[in-house]
Amino acid sequence: MAVSNLDRSAKGVYPIAITPFDKDGSVDNESLDRLIDFYLSCNVPGLTILGVLGEVSRLSDSESIALTKRVLARVNGRAQVIVGVSHVGRQNFVAFTRSVMQAGAAGIMVAPTAGLKTEEQVIGFFDGLIGAIGADVPIALQDYPQNTNVFISPETLGILIQRHASIKVVKHEEASALNKITRLREQETEGGRERVSILVGNSALYLPQELHRGVDGANTGVAFPEMLVEVCDQFCKGQPQQGEDLYDLFLPLIRYEQQPGIGLAIRKEIFRRRGIIKHADVRAPGPRLNNHDHQELTALLARLQSRLAESPFSQLIRSHPSSS
Amino acid sequence: MAVSNLDRSAKGVYPIAITPFDKDGSVDNESLDRLIDFYLSCNVPGLTILGVLGEVSRLSDSESIALTKRVLARVNGRAQVIVGVSHVGRQNFVAFTRSVMQAGAAGIMVAPTAGLKTEEQVIGFFDGLIGAIGADVPIALQDYPQNTNVFISPETLGILIQRHASIKVVKHEEASALNKITRLREQETEGGRERVSILVGNSALYLPQELHRGVDGANTGVAFPEMLVEVCDQFCKGQPQQGEDLYDLFLPLIRYEQQPGIGLAIRKEIFRRRGIIKHADVRAPGPRLNNHDHQELTALLARLQSRLAESPFSQLIRSHPSSS
Amino acid sequence: MAVSNLDRSAKGVYPIAITPFDKDGSVDNESLDRLIDFYLSCNVPGLTILGVLGEVSRLSDSESIALTKRVLARVNGRAQVIVGVSHVGRQNFVAFTRSVMQAGAAGIMVAPTAGLKTEEQVIGFFDGLIGAIGADVPIALQDYPQNTNVFISPETLGILIQRHASIKVVKHEEASALNKITRLREQETEGGRERVSILVGNSALYLPQELHRGVDGANTGVAFPEMLVEVCDQFCKGQPQQGEDLYDLFLPLIRYEQQPGIGLAIRKEIFRRRGIIKHADVRAPGPRLNNHDHQELTALLARLQSRLAESPFSQLIRSHPSSS
Amino acid sequence: MAVSNLDRSAKGVYPIAITPFDKDGSVDNESLDRLIDFYLSCNVPGLTILGVLGEVSRLSDSESIALTKRVLARVNGRAQVIVGVSHVGRQNFVAFTRSVMQAGAAGIMVAPTAGLKTEEQVIGFFDGLIGAIGADVPIALQDYPQNTNVFISPETLGILIQRHASIKVVKHEEASALNKITRLREQETEGGRERVSILVGNSALYLPQELHRGVDGANTGVAFPEMLVEVCDQFCKGQPQQGEDLYDLFLPLIRYEQQPGIGLAIRKEIFRRRGIIKHADVRAPGPRLNNHDHQELTALLARLQSRLAESPFSQLIRSHPSSS
Repeated sequence: MAVSNLDRSAKGVYPIAITPFDKDGSVDNESLDRLIDFYLSCNVPGLTILGVLGEVSRLSDSESIALTKRVLARVNGRAQVIVGVSHVGRQNFVAFTRSVMQAGAAGIMVAPTAGLKTEEQVIGFFDGLIGAIGADVPIALQDYPQNTNVFISPETLGILIQRHASIKVVKHEEASALNKITRLREQETEGGRERVSILVGNSALYLPQELHRGVDGANTGVAFPEMLVEVCDQFCKGQPQQGEDLYDLFLPLIRYEQQPGIGLAIRKEIFRRRGIIKHADVRAPGPRLNNHDHQELTALLARLQSRLAESPFSQLIRSHPSSS
Repeated sequence: MAVSNLDRSAKGVYPIAITPFDKDGSVDNESLDRLIDFYLSCNVPGLTILGVLGEVSRLSDSESIALTKRVLARVNGRAQVIVGVSHVGRQNFVAFTRSVMQAGAAGIMVAPTAGLKTEEQVIGFFDGLIGAIGADVPIALQDYPQNTNVFISPETLGILIQRHASIKVVKHEEASALNKITRLREQETEGGRERVSILVGNSALYLPQELHRGVDGANTGVAFPEMLVEVCDQFCKGQPQQGEDLYDLFLPLIRYEQQPGIGLAIRKEIFRRRGIIKHADVRAPGPRLNNHDHQELTALLARLQSRLAESPFSQLIRSHPSSS
Repeated sequence: MAVSNLDRSAKGVYPIAITPFDKDGSVDNESLDRLIDFYLSCNVPGLTILGVLGEVSRLSDSESIALTKRVLARVNGRAQVIVGVSHVGRQNFVAFTRSVMQAGAAGIMVAPTAGLKTEEQVIGFFDGLIGAIGADVPIALQDYPQNTNVFISPETLGILIQRHASIKVVKHEEASALNKITRLREQETEGGRERVSILVGNSALYLPQELHRGVDGANTGVAFPEMLVEVCDQFCKGQPQQGEDLYDLFLPLIRYEQQPGIGLAIRKEIFRRRGIIKHADVRAPGPRLNNHDHQELTALLARLQSRLAESPFSQLIRSHPSSS
Repeated sequence: MAVSNLDRSAKGVYPIAITPFDKDGSVDNESLDRLIDFYLSCNVPGLTILGVLGEVSRLSDSESIALTKRVLARVNGRAQVIVGVSHVGRQNFVAFTRSVMQAGAAGIMVAPTAGLKTEEQVIGFFDGLIGAIGADVPIALQDYPQNTNVFISPETLGILIQRHASIKVVKHEEASALNKITRLREQETEGGRERVSILVGNSALYLPQELHRGVDGANTGVAFPEMLVEVCDQFCKGQPQQGEDLYDLFLPLIRYEQQPGIGLAIRKEIFRRRGIIKHADVRAPGPRLNNHDHQELTALLARLQSRLAESPFSQLIRSHPSSS
């Protein structure tokens, strides 16, 4: 239980965890344990729970706390656990943050609340929030305007990063904003502010390009996190071409998984076929795969497997998905 | 404790309750009791808690349950209590619904979940939801597309009303949709389906027009609910001109209160000035009134009071707001 | 033809003109002339054509130019004519601006183009646009986020006003943003930048409050512009209570007219009933009034007329609407 | 000049054409001719002009007409030309449609106008529009809710297809809606309505999956349309695996091109590098590529070229992009 808190040197792949459910709809703790073990077996420095992909909006407060404690106990100091906090009311945001930090979380993930309209309001929001939770709680700031409809310019992000030392990670997932990464890095090389960790979300749809532009890793929830780890490692080792070769092998699936809505159901189904979780169900009212989707996924996975087998990365995946 | 459940004959004014907070941000139960007593003193058939105006998104699950029980205890069968249920996940929706119905609620208020794109999806959503909670739980269906971005045509509403006998009330608050009321009523006069209760929300900004078009009352949260009660009564008594005269006296304030965002802070401040709640604070991150807003409100209330004094309705308001 | 260009001392009421159409859907030039004469008879300093209310998106380029020339010829120097320019492409924006300025327009109305996400982008947009059209074209900057989904903070507006002397008027129509006016005025009293003219849009739904907060007038398209003129005059004369009394008489109608979508059809119908335009049709696909809407409008207008008759403003309206 | 009109048997690839501009911002007719020749050299049955990708919103009416005539003259009956019509006002919609059909267009592309909220409104919109332009004008119905915010269910599409024989093509580009294709095809196999042509847009991001689900081709604007043609041909020939192999080679670029906003600038730059158009500029205010973007694109194209060279499709691309 001696893992450090999240800091600005965060690097590598932090998977966003799914939440497995039992047939009766309750959280499936056995599958959860297996899932955590699986993530850790990929040699990740940490993981994030209670994100959008973790169906946080479909969990009750008590389920969220219980899940956090279960995960922290299972991880048991082997990795950093970042907990998404999405309570709209400040009181409950603070209370939940305190309880997860006391339980051993390495930091929290926060997105600007929907409805913030101007950058002055965005800055005011984080000033107020950090004032309330305290400057000692490490933050992964989720910049995900497709979901929040809050757009933050690189300048405003720079102001926030400089102003609040507790913002350790920018989780970059604004679509079509590769230059945002470049500009954040330029702020640092031009002096003026300390280097921040940037991890990409957005299903890693542009990971090689983003790594070239200076991100430190990924914080997203694909069904083959070991691939993301290997891609990042290859870039680290100065072998970006190999990293991109591997990435491109998976791109047909990455693209398929990143579909809004149904993408979560697809990922859970792959985790199920890999034997990691028992049931693939998304909580109602959520997407369901039909026969056509299942066949399509089977075909995509078969293609992936055969192309992997011919590649230098044939040993990468230990638990291949079954065909059904 | 012998109040009936919500049914399709619902009529009159069901205020949407605000939630009063203490200086430390916790729910202020004394003010809550006073508020409930105040609503009941207006001779309303019921009230709705845990709506948008009640800051439901800023309450924790346990606060929501505690507040529901407190309100039900205070009401003690003197009126119907409708409880807003906004849990996204079906499991928690069902569990919360069961607990409030067992505690004595007369029904629940439900809006279609954000993200439903087509009317087939809307129908599927309500089929699934009503299947899960049971057909015996009375529903006030909140039709509020400005908030949910889910638009439901009169035809689809008609299908839902016919298909699900447990939909007792349509809470109509689509902006600029006076003809929706007309068309719902035409569905009934043309035969084909049973009459449903229609109560209007949307801050009652068109109440006289809506009463002329056939609504049964209002289900909204203005700071002078006794005025809404009297307007509805005048229409019932066949004196719509008097009702509209009274309404127009309040219209400058109604229009002022209905501002998105800040409107809630204005209403809480009026309740505070009327001596009904102790503090006007909205939970952070929420709107705050500044000095300019306070002066503006004071001026509007002074004009209202002096115009009321000259009118036939000079006795209507017993607790006038203080000037600060 | 010696009217001055728009400048920062703009004051009073600049109606947004509707566009009258003939039964066959073409622009009805006779009605247009009558409409222009009517606006000028209200003693307005200017008017705006080709706004949203003028159905600009339903006009072709050549119709827009022809309409502009017709209006300028009819006005013939008696008032300032501001022309809405909404061409998305810069080339056509510039070309259209040049042609209307050469034809005698006093300035143009411009809104930030939809899709601008950050305030840096908003500033870049106006820098580019003003660079292209030239710094000598007077601009009324339309701040209307309900329509554009571009939100501009008071700070950013202040930067734009200071940076570009050609921004003469801020057309303020952000909903629920009374404090934006206060903050723009504070920027001026605190020094730092020159005073700008602020005219309110948004159907004048808060005109008295906005005048108290320091706006210079209105730039909006109600069906009784003479009322807006009188309200502003009363405030100018230091008699705000009288101004507000008059305003409140019209508030039931102002609120009715401001409905999104159908509001335009309502206004055109009132202009028709007042004998100013021949047909009330909105171009397809646009809203149509049905029998219920007509009766409702008749009732609202009758109430207005009888309340006006009892008021000190009984002589204000010269051309009362007929009942059908 | 004897090409047939668009009909329900439309099949294969109909590129959405970009619009090339000269350095001074005017339409570059020489590049346009070269571009048309290039498209036709890919053996396409037709192409679409004046779409979003063609920057239609940044063209004036007269530019749109001139461009249409230039393209029709250049094509000279060698392929079908579909013309996007996006005039909001019905009068101008009809006039523009008539002029392009008389000039020799094979059909028009139409999207439901933004602001339609319910499926009844969508049906009413198409009833009105087709009534106005006449039932003899072939229509490609663009189903692109990401752009219009109008969502149409498969049922409603089915009603429209059955009701209006002039709807020849559904241009399917709702994101994450692979099952929409399946359901449209099921409507046909279950009887009840005639088969319609379905062409996919959405940058062909799921083309192999969509072909498996029964689409007839693509109607989208990638920078290597010959690849789309070959993919479709392979599927036609009963060799879907080969088609998908080719597709996957291009997927890193397809994914890169499909970025909202900047994607158009990327495509125009590739067309420029291929020697097809002279300048890559998008009309202001539009996206611009910076040095980082250029380098990134160069790297992606180099990877593509080297992977293509090793593949069975090494002869596919005749005009490879230069590296700058």
